[in-house]
Amino acid sequence: MRFISYLYQDQPGWGLANADSVVPLHSPTYPTLLSALRAGQLAALGAQAAAPALAQADIRFLPVIPAPGKIFCVGHNYEEHRIETARDKTQHPLLFMRVPDSQTAHLQPILLPAESSQLDYEGEIAVVIGKAGRRIREQDAWEHVAGYSAYNDGSIRDWQRHTLQFTAGKNFSGTGAFGPWLVTRDEIADGAELTLETRLNGEVMQHTTTASMIFPIPVLINYISTFTTLEPGDVIVTGTPGGVGAKRNPPVWMKPGDRVEVEVSQVGILANTIAPD
Amino acid sequence: MRFISYLYQDQPGWGLANADSVVPLHSPTYPTLLSALRAGQLAALGAQAAAPALAQADIRFLPVIPAPGKIFCVGHNYEEHRIETARDKTQHPLLFMRVPDSQTAHLQPILLPAESSQLDYEGEIAVVIGKAGRRIREQDAWEHVAGYSAYNDGSIRDWQRHTLQFTAGKNFSGTGAFGPWLVTRDEIADGAELTLETRLNGEVMQHTTTASMIFPIPVLINYISTFTTLEPGDVIVTGTPGGVGAKRNPPVWMKPGDRVEVEVSQVGILANTIAPD
Repeated sequence: MRFISYLYQDQPGWGLANADSVVPLHSPTYPTLLSALRAGQLAALGAQAAAPALAQADIRFLPVIPAPGKIFCVGHNYEEHRIETARDKTQHPLLFMRVPDSQTAHLQPILLPAESSQLDYEGEIAVVIGKAGRRIREQDAWEHVAGYSAYNDGSIRDWQRHTLQFTAGKNFSGTGAFGPWLVTRDEIADGAELTLETRLNGEVMQHTTTASMIFPIPVLINYISTFTTLEPGDVIVTGTPGGVGAKRNPPVWMKPGDRVEVEVSQVGILANTIAPD
Repeated sequence: MRFISYLYQDQPGWGLANADSVVPLHSPTYPTLLSALRAGQLAALGAQAAAPALAQADIRFLPVIPAPGKIFCVGHNYEEHRIETARDKTQHPLLFMRVPDSQTAHLQPILLPAESSQLDYEGEIAVVIGKAGRRIREQDAWEHVAGYSAYNDGSIRDWQRHTLQFTAGKNFSGTGAFGPWLVTRDEIADGAELTLETRLNGEVMQHTTTASMIFPIPVLINYISTFTTLEPGDVIVTGTPGGVGAKRNPPVWMKPGDRVEVEVSQVGILANTIAPD
């Protein structure tokens, strides 16, 4: 099943996405997709979904989960990107965090702030947690996954390099695109090799498969849950492959009017245009 | 005025703290201190506080704000600490983030996880935001401050050094102590020089004043609000001075049974004991 969060006539909702329609599922009890995940009711609610449906053309996408409790992002998790950024191999995943306000949605703009011209794409696979856990063993990790989405971890490179910590450059408002939908775990075999591709104005800029991940999803879940309780709706953005704009010669920065797409096989295409903030 | 969050007979509440009592202020409209801050009603509710009060001895402190929308922490923001950690001077503040679940409260334990023995203290001053803003000018920054508290940015040093990013070592559950209360801005002159001292089992380990801050509070508010909207209840943990345990010879790590205190002049004393997780 595919679930989305959206605005319809300026009211927030969420529901089950079909090919070109969406069946609303919000209720006073489950006003958000996050609330249904936290209650462990997502599959049950999805199974009960019935007409009438809205046309997807009539809704405005929101980030799949607009306000996750935690958004952990993994850096240098594909070998080609580690090499292009000249980073040392590490024994453990490199993690930074995004705030929910830094997110944007499928078909909504990614914002270029006035303070920089160095807006870069990072196509990634997002894992959404479905079941709470602390110190989750790798062999149990898949049971904690609700599903998958695509993510564009849009980065303001000069601000990312202001200091050793990435926080500022990874948290400009409206730079992290999350969508279009949550594809539930039952639709993708655990550990299936997925293709991840980023296109800028139609040109392929990043292309890899999850076989090149340095720290696979169960390792990430184990590592993160060692220090914190992973809760339903928490998001792990699993890292970007080689080919980022900053490491090209000359560098490629996204500018207003550009269209960027992140495609994850078995998940879908996350598409955004760039707009000035 | 001083506000606290607490548990009383296992029920969460918040209220106005007097010398040894607390006047409950929670209501269906304002169930949390955060909700009152977001509504801009903290001062009005505090002014209406009337008996009956609870004895502070009968309540259990919670983190001042148990679930802030964002917790930004500043690294290397006092010159002595920058030197002891051999960090380069930077033109901009170094920022990392904590998740709310990593917090603990006044008189509650700071948790030493089984995965490490390198639990370190970092006494700091916490600034709580009272008014939302984006791209806040330095000269306007104080108007966005609700007040101040003490913070012990407890760190698991080996995990902090797993990679270049501090995230893992700064986010173990129950390591960041936040309290005892929020002292509202009207009680401390804007920019007043405050003394910050950390004591471990009674011994002074860190002692400085805010005159040694590299990036003062208005600079931090301006910088952070450039990339994200600061919202009421957001917390800026403004950095630790020299004298951390990791940089002593031999290193000093906190162990179960230790008592650590962070004292901020005009604010109060945040006291915690160390317990195994």
